[in-house]
Amino acid sequence: MNEPVGFIGLGVMGRPMALNLLKAGFPLVVHSRSRGPVDALVAAGARAEASPAGVARQTEVIVTMLPDSPDVQLVLAGPAGVFGAVRPGAVIVDMSTISPAVARDLAVQASELGATLLDAPVSGGEIGAINGTLSIMVGGDAAALERVRPILNAMGNAERVTHIGGSGAGQVCKACNQIAIGGSLAVVGELFALAWKTGVDPAKVREALLGGFAASRVLEVHGERILTHNYRPGFRAGLYQKDLRIALDTARAHNVPMPVSAVVQQLVNAMIAAGRADEDYSALATVLFDLAGVRHE
Amino acid sequence: MNEPVGFIGLGVMGRPMALNLLKAGFPLVVHSRSRGPVDALVAAGARAEASPAGVARQTEVIVTMLPDSPDVQLVLAGPAGVFGAVRPGAVIVDMSTISPAVARDLAVQASELGATLLDAPVSGGEIGAINGTLSIMVGGDAAALERVRPILNAMGNAERVTHIGGSGAGQVCKACNQIAIGGSLAVVGELFALAWKTGVDPAKVREALLGGFAASRVLEVHGERILTHNYRPGFRAGLYQKDLRIALDTARAHNVPMPVSAVVQQLVNAMIAAGRADEDYSALATVLFDLAGVRHE
Repeated sequence: MNEPVGFIGLGVMGRPMALNLLKAGFPLVVHSRSRGPVDALVAAGARAEASPAGVARQTEVIVTMLPDSPDVQLVLAGPAGVFGAVRPGAVIVDMSTISPAVARDLAVQASELGATLLDAPVSGGEIGAINGTLSIMVGGDAAALERVRPILNAMGNAERVTHIGGSGAGQVCKACNQIAIGGSLAVVGELFALAWKTGVDPAKVREALLGGFAASRVLEVHGERILTHNYRPGFRAGLYQKDLRIALDTARAHNVPMPVSAVVQQLVNAMIAAGRADEDYSALATVLFDLAGVRHE
Repeated sequence: MNEPVGFIGLGVMGRPMALNLLKAGFPLVVHSRSRGPVDALVAAGARAEASPAGVARQTEVIVTMLPDSPDVQLVLAGPAGVFGAVRPGAVIVDMSTISPAVARDLAVQASELGATLLDAPVSGGEIGAINGTLSIMVGGDAAALERVRPILNAMGNAERVTHIGGSGAGQVCKACNQIAIGGSLAVVGELFALAWKTGVDPAKVREALLGGFAASRVLEVHGERILTHNYRPGFRAGLYQKDLRIALDTARAHNVPMPVSAVVQQLVNAMIAAGRADEDYSALATVLFDLAGVRHE
């Protein structure tokens, strides 16, 4: 029989991830701020706890999936938090996308309590969470990762559960991931605008480019979204703004100039200003279309 | 027996492309400014002509592969140029990367002489030229493309000879290709710098990112070059600077704001300023490493 797993944070991502753990046969002890998702998980077989500490008291492995750094700090180190009740030897797997510096700080606090914290942010969005095909980028103790690997494999693609390095390395990798996507996304918007305004079919351009060095998943997947004006998330622009903030804050803290990502951040700010926070982040292209006077709805 | 083909411009790209035409059994009439490559092609079975007009007088299909817009204007419309001797019904295939506006203008001039000009720039670099695996993006008359398709297939990947649209559309597509690569290349440099300065192994980051939405040929191929400090061309940075100028000039002419590509252009200027014009354009990352104080040689 599988060991019981704690799961804290049942939002758009956490809820399907927790359901996949149940499906894989892991008894689940859950906690979340909202009542609805907790009820849904209890209906599916999970046991609910009223606080993060209550979850920590009953489990050796605790997964957290929360929106931002302060949420993780509160759930772990706040009142009735995990750290107040964590068992020695427990492994906390924070799958949220948060600041690498905060992840490192929390890992130090966990180790002082005899527990281990892994940062294990994911890529793949809501679809990946539902299908259990997330990529998972792990920072922290390698032995702890091996212990929880079966649990991660139930939520992600086993071949894409990657140990990147020490504490915080998973979060750095996630920041790198968001930087890579942002630059590619922005130039796809720029080149589609250029094609449209010069009277060239952007679908033909996309097709030709996918056969060469310009090929990317962003051009393939998000390029298709942009051409069909399909901005249903996917991955909400508001969350992408948060992820880019983390990436650029980390760059600032380490004096890494990122001029292209800085421009991408401004374009993301414009996308949010245009009221698109709840659309898919590929709507970034619409900012460039608006600037170029390209009609796109 | 195949019809004779004219080939003008036997540089780093033109020479192996012409050799592939010879290998495929096309009798070749060649012209180039430098004596050396002409001698090499003659030794391989081609006939040399002293002027572009001399080439045009003897062939129904004329391929040009030259560095920049003024070179193509001179070879076609200049003294002893192709236009002075072109046969009615001839097809001129300009495979150089030049301004879409110049390509359209030359196509109009060709049609006034009863000939057809296709713009057919390539992607794939020297390796693609040598191996005959270039991607070819074609603008202009579709029937003319069908007539010369066997010739293009001898130089490129038959599945990647794509008709994009009317005159100039091939050049617009090539500009889009260079924009897409530039944005991706710049952010790969940024994220590698971020990884290095935060103590994370960029090779692990690259590996993890290649499994998800951040995957791109640039991260795969140029990422590998950057990690191994291998900046042998490939594709010379000086030529990439020229291609980006064409892209941004075209954007300006059509009032398309391209803020990310504008930053990429500045980074390319810095790469050339650092004395790297003859290195591969993936050396763009070194500009970001220098800015971040990352040692990288």
